[in-house]
Amino acid sequence: MERSHVRLTPLDRLYLQRAYDLAARGLGETAPNPPAGAVVVARDGRIVGEGYHHRTGSAHAEPLALARAGDAARGATIYVSLEPCDHVGRTPPCTDALLRAGIARVVAGAVDPTGHGNVARLREHGIEVEIAGDARGRELIEVFSRSIEVDRPYVALKMAMSLDGAIASAPGVQERLTSEEARRYVRELRIVHDAVMVGAGTVRIDDPQLTVRPPHARGRPYLRVVVCESGTLARERRVFVPEDGYLPTIVLAPDGARERLADLNGAADMLFVGAPGAERLDLAQALKALRARGVASVLCEGGPKLAAALIASRQVDRVYWAIAPVLLGSERAAPVLAGSDLAALGARVAFDRIEMIGPDVILSGTFADV
Amino acid sequence: MERSHVRLTPLDRLYLQRAYDLAARGLGETAPNPPAGAVVVARDGRIVGEGYHHRTGSAHAEPLALARAGDAARGATIYVSLEPCDHVGRTPPCTDALLRAGIARVVAGAVDPTGHGNVARLREHGIEVEIAGDARGRELIEVFSRSIEVDRPYVALKMAMSLDGAIASAPGVQERLTSEEARRYVRELRIVHDAVMVGAGTVRIDDPQLTVRPPHARGRPYLRVVVCESGTLARERRVFVPEDGYLPTIVLAPDGARERLADLNGAADMLFVGAPGAERLDLAQALKALRARGVASVLCEGGPKLAAALIASRQVDRVYWAIAPVLLGSERAAPVLAGSDLAALGARVAFDRIEMIGPDVILSGTFADV
Repeated sequence: MERSHVRLTPLDRLYLQRAYDLAARGLGETAPNPPAGAVVVARDGRIVGEGYHHRTGSAHAEPLALARAGDAARGATIYVSLEPCDHVGRTPPCTDALLRAGIARVVAGAVDPTGHGNVARLREHGIEVEIAGDARGRELIEVFSRSIEVDRPYVALKMAMSLDGAIASAPGVQERLTSEEARRYVRELRIVHDAVMVGAGTVRIDDPQLTVRPPHARGRPYLRVVVCESGTLARERRVFVPEDGYLPTIVLAPDGARERLADLNGAADMLFVGAPGAERLDLAQALKALRARGVASVLCEGGPKLAAALIASRQVDRVYWAIAPVLLGSERAAPVLAGSDLAALGARVAFDRIEMIGPDVILSGTFADV
Repeated sequence: MERSHVRLTPLDRLYLQRAYDLAARGLGETAPNPPAGAVVVARDGRIVGEGYHHRTGSAHAEPLALARAGDAARGATIYVSLEPCDHVGRTPPCTDALLRAGIARVVAGAVDPTGHGNVARLREHGIEVEIAGDARGRELIEVFSRSIEVDRPYVALKMAMSLDGAIASAPGVQERLTSEEARRYVRELRIVHDAVMVGAGTVRIDDPQLTVRPPHARGRPYLRVVVCESGTLARERRVFVPEDGYLPTIVLAPDGARERLADLNGAADMLFVGAPGAERLDLAQALKALRARGVASVLCEGGPKLAAALIASRQVDRVYWAIAPVLLGSERAAPVLAGSDLAALGARVAFDRIEMIGPDVILSGTFADV
């Protein structure tokens, strides 16, 4: 609704980008809050204060930036990645701080998806407010926006395949298709999502660590999740080896798997869901159980069956689809998705980011609901 | 070799882009010559003459541009998409025209891959010469450059698949995965390649016309080619229906298929290759036979078997890989490549163009030989 009257100068957009860059520093640290950044620019164009929301429970971006600006905030413009909150949470509402500081103009990247924002209240007090409504502002709060709509974690699905849609030249074979650059990109995705999730087949075939290398300290502990609907898992698998800064790895399984997975007791945090004795895993229930554990976002890294099942049950919010420039010839090769009939689903991805990462291409987008 | 001393101003690059745009008008019309464009810019910065190579046998870009410039060419700079030729072919060498006109400086996009260029001769005559050596300059002559290295047509392979690597939800099913925008893009590719080629399976399943719609007149007649190693083809198929501006459709088959394909006599231009009675089609021989017919470039549009066989025999110069944002679930689905073991080949594509065409992504690149 605000987009039609946006009056932003190129300089406004530059300062807003700075607010976005600041906000991005909090990615992965702020759940269940969104990341946020703020820049206070005095009338003469000098940046007099900056701030960002460092982590859950710490100060919001606006009060930090205003505190640094001090008296210079009077009559200034504040650029915020997200509409300031008018809501008493763990910290007092930012509106009050803006009014007290004498801010004359607010330029916000995105509107507050909770509806707790306060454009109207600021305007009542004579403050000029502009909402940019641009892609980067929305992107920074994508996890947050989605998490207030659904009662499960935000789910990002990362897959990697050959140009002809295969993950390996034959089923059960472990293959490195993508480049070191692409794998570094994926490790950065691991940092900004609360948890990393894979299916049991991937653990059996690839035995991944699913850690962030080199280690990157973050305020929230890292978490690895293995989904195991059938079969067993050896406690010696690398994903179960304790790592500094990591919570015990969660194994999500149907209730009926208690005995079958008894070997993992003590090695993993067993999370059984569904009716007593259930053999099939209800993914919606499983994700809900993760949310109940405080997991706000999950990066699923396959394999083909878990990925297809998540898509089929419409629980994927964003895909990161890495395409390696290799060809495997798709007949004996293992396809990137398996086990679910997706053709009937008619799911479509709206690509919004296409990146060349080293020799690989990473397509990213959200599911356009049909 | 020239790239290290390139002294091009932003204005030089702008005029060179204009020369490229002019050259591009001749794409698909000039074989076996490369397309070429020229812009003459007087010392005061005015464009005093432009020209491009319209079609095979017509005047080259430089003499056309110089004729338009007349006396204004004296002391001027000429921007040419490709190094001027010093070679008597169907037209006199362009070097002489440049010298006669009194051109002071030549800025060329690409070097002449035939080695018939004349940087040295121009410099001997006191003309300053710069070679930009940029991507667009190389791209415009890619078909030409490749065709002087190999004794077959330049082969571009265009495939379209779902994000999970399938061409249809089940084998034998015809499916439209890509958007109207992507199909328009493909029709433009048809215009700039001498011939369009598909495998017999594609004719049987999809029954495509393989024409350019809306009709786009070009100097060279259009040509459709069907590769048929096994099975039969009905003469009623749309690809065999005569069209204005099209040569009779060629059917490329092994010699042993004469009887099996007798139904096509009179409906198609039968081109049998290989030893008498041969059952297998040697693709290298087949492509050579097309080259002997004057076909300098071919756009292969599938299907999966022909595409994989072309890749496996290392006869693909460039791929255009369209990815539709749909998911088919790859188990029952028909894979984009089939019938050849490509994993062992180790072929890698170097992507150099990534385009978002409507909702689809088209990845293009050349094969990096291993």
